[in-house]
Amino acid sequence: MMNHLFKSSKAVVDWPFHKLLIANRGEIAVRIIRACRDLGIRTVAVYSTADRDALHTKLADESICIGPASAKDSYLSIDQLIEAAKVTRSDAIHPGYGFLSEDPTFAKQIVANDLIYIGADADVISLLGNKEAARKTMHLNGMPIVSGSKEAVTDEKVAAEQAEQIGYPVMLKASSGGGGKGMRIIHSRKEFAKLFSVAQGEAVESFNDEHMYIEKYLANPRHIEVQIIADQYGNVVSVGERDCTIQSHNQKVMEEAPAVILNDVDRNRMLSICENVVAPLHYVGLGTIEFLYEGPGRFYFMEMNTRIQVEHPITELTSGIDLVKAQLMVSAGAQLAKMHPNESEFALECRITALSAGTITGLHLPGGYGIRIDTAIYQGYVVPPYYDAMIAKIIVFGSNRQEVVQQMRSVIDETVVNGIDTNLNLLAQILSEPDFRNMNTNVNWLDNQIQLSNEQE
Amino acid sequence: MMNHLFKSSKAVVDWPFHKLLIANRGEIAVRIIRACRDLGIRTVAVYSTADRDALHTKLADESICIGPASAKDSYLSIDQLIEAAKVTRSDAIHPGYGFLSEDPTFAKQIVANDLIYIGADADVISLLGNKEAARKTMHLNGMPIVSGSKEAVTDEKVAAEQAEQIGYPVMLKASSGGGGKGMRIIHSRKEFAKLFSVAQGEAVESFNDEHMYIEKYLANPRHIEVQIIADQYGNVVSVGERDCTIQSHNQKVMEEAPAVILNDVDRNRMLSICENVVAPLHYVGLGTIEFLYEGPGRFYFMEMNTRIQVEHPITELTSGIDLVKAQLMVSAGAQLAKMHPNESEFALECRITALSAGTITGLHLPGGYGIRIDTAIYQGYVVPPYYDAMIAKIIVFGSNRQEVVQQMRSVIDETVVNGIDTNLNLLAQILSEPDFRNMNTNVNWLDNQIQLSNEQE
Repeated sequence: MMNHLFKSSKAVVDWPFHKLLIANRGEIAVRIIRACRDLGIRTVAVYSTADRDALHTKLADESICIGPASAKDSYLSIDQLIEAAKVTRSDAIHPGYGFLSEDPTFAKQIVANDLIYIGADADVISLLGNKEAARKTMHLNGMPIVSGSKEAVTDEKVAAEQAEQIGYPVMLKASSGGGGKGMRIIHSRKEFAKLFSVAQGEAVESFNDEHMYIEKYLANPRHIEVQIIADQYGNVVSVGERDCTIQSHNQKVMEEAPAVILNDVDRNRMLSICENVVAPLHYVGLGTIEFLYEGPGRFYFMEMNTRIQVEHPITELTSGIDLVKAQLMVSAGAQLAKMHPNESEFALECRITALSAGTITGLHLPGGYGIRIDTAIYQGYVVPPYYDAMIAKIIVFGSNRQEVVQQMRSVIDETVVNGIDTNLNLLAQILSEPDFRNMNTNVNWLDNQIQLSNEQE
Repeated sequence: MMNHLFKSSKAVVDWPFHKLLIANRGEIAVRIIRACRDLGIRTVAVYSTADRDALHTKLADESICIGPASAKDSYLSIDQLIEAAKVTRSDAIHPGYGFLSEDPTFAKQIVANDLIYIGADADVISLLGNKEAARKTMHLNGMPIVSGSKEAVTDEKVAAEQAEQIGYPVMLKASSGGGGKGMRIIHSRKEFAKLFSVAQGEAVESFNDEHMYIEKYLANPRHIEVQIIADQYGNVVSVGERDCTIQSHNQKVMEEAPAVILNDVDRNRMLSICENVVAPLHYVGLGTIEFLYEGPGRFYFMEMNTRIQVEHPITELTSGIDLVKAQLMVSAGAQLAKMHPNESEFALECRITALSAGTITGLHLPGGYGIRIDTAIYQGYVVPPYYDAMIAKIIVFGSNRQEVVQQMRSVIDETVVNGIDTNLNLLAQILSEPDFRNMNTNVNWLDNQIQLSNEQE
């Protein structure tokens, strides 16, 4: 399938970069190093003093220390990273995910220093990083959004009329809001007057701004997202969609592809909308468009992430496309063919997270038929307390969802990580739940049904 | 693809066995345990005293010691194995590969004890285990074989006439021969008289039999084999072919699928011949038919292996069929559909072998995009000196041969096995050879070109 993604079988004739600095750590740094090796691109790992013995530090062609354990002074330090690229004579920088991967200043600084940034232009990152601006731009380009106020309101009566039009339940938000301040879910006209004045009061107190905003509230949606890739010539390909509904406190825990809940009409519409809305943006590289999905015909734009996603492997397995290689290739000028990858079979990813720091004293990760492991841990590795808790991704690929879920259940049982606490038990529990097996879940399911019932035990 | 292999999507409604004893060890025992777990079949591992801490012993639902380290008294002891099956109330036995996997007595004893044997009938194993009988039967069923004497000869002149008809070079063999005694490669009529009398003299001395046999000698063929699966109703499916040309002293070192050297006509002919020759045999289960391949249109039956093969994963990756599950399913009465799996993309397997016994003090196996690992080793595992030296299989799956070979080269570099000697350097060398990259190899290439030149250095 990788062969069909690009217009020419020799998609990059002359690489504009030969040494890539990876401004990241952990499994994604290892993932990028491996892709570069296959492409003949030299790699430079950066590491904090806490990551001297990390796998990415060992596997790269070169490694350079960029500061102390604290991410602020190492992996988040633009100055240190640019300096490291200069010292090692790197000619490109890959941001991975997290850290500075969606920071337009970082992207701008890289380009200002005559280095190639593996990602979208700083202006596009900036636009899409602003939730309201992204929402407006996308809507203008034909993206469905949750219905809401056309303009901010201050008067309760005007607001209530808007709420009636949108239909209850609605979400009331402070226009200048953030962190939940001035936010209320309102279920009926009866509640409206009281909650509006409370929320507006909070808004004035917190942001000194009485402007309020009303949106349709989706009580228990699923999270569905579309992986896109775009080249420098305006071509955009929707590679496939993922269902990432299993979340805990907005952190994805399990992801699957394809989204079996979608009917063919909705899937095709979703994939082609994504191609159409991205095309005018002059976007280059990988991106993910996230939707809230309520039911057939009802899906709404949430946000667009301008970077590689943690859960990219499930799309790689169902599409047969190496997304990291493809990302490097479009950054190097490769031209995409007009094609629609066929999604085949089924892939499920579980994120193994560390619930404590410490030394991994024993480690057995599964293998064999249908298993892919992406990790940077090893037996004897010390999990530092400073960074993202996700330490390994276990991916199962097979004929259909039922078989894959069954296999994942066994695979999680087989996995051994000694010396630290992990979420393996929670993963096993989710995989055994009838609700999970029957797709009877939503983004709040894990927090409300599972974690809550565990606490009550 | 697995969904299309069987006639019904619920291929086995009522399993005739619920607890499977695995009469094997190492990675293949682990492979079978994992397949059973997914199918809901309980597993019993058997282990020698040397394998108390082996992975298969730990992963199975139950484990039972069957004797001392010496394979003769444990993994090769039919009595111990049958007794273990009775003690654990197992109702079926899987032989794996090696050990007793092609021993008709074992298959017969299992059935005589009212247990189900996961494999072909003892009579068919017996027939196909006899090289001459297998060759004759296969030829009668339409299989191409190397041209040779219709009947054994004793007279030099008659033999020389046959050799002229067959065409030089020819292989002269003692009819009762074995172990190379009475065998000569003859390149011309001039050499014939002298070498015939020498070889016949050896034959008389060694086997007290002057009957000789002449066959076309293939100097530097490739080894190509076809994976078949057959059900209890006479249906046979050729799942795909493999190229296993890279061998050292007749031991396979690397295997690839599909066999890119084959043109479409030969591939289709080879796959359909295999289905046709197996159909009349009342064969049930997995099997592999091995060919010597000389060039377009010229391939000849070598032998048929009546068991799962070490290199089965590459066919699983290119066909999308879980061969071990399929094997268990046909043994349970599942009915195959008439289908030809599409081979897609490319898979390459490297066998990691231990060149010394000892404790694995450090272990890093690769992972990520396109990688499958089948192994039973772990950090801290003690590789015993008693059994097969193959300790891990690394398989890479990707778009085409060139990319996969390139990735495997990096993957072998990344692999770390400390504490014992391995063949990792040899594998890296093979992968870098222009002859290997260009398919300019044959079954003698590794011994003659690579190993020899290493010795001369």
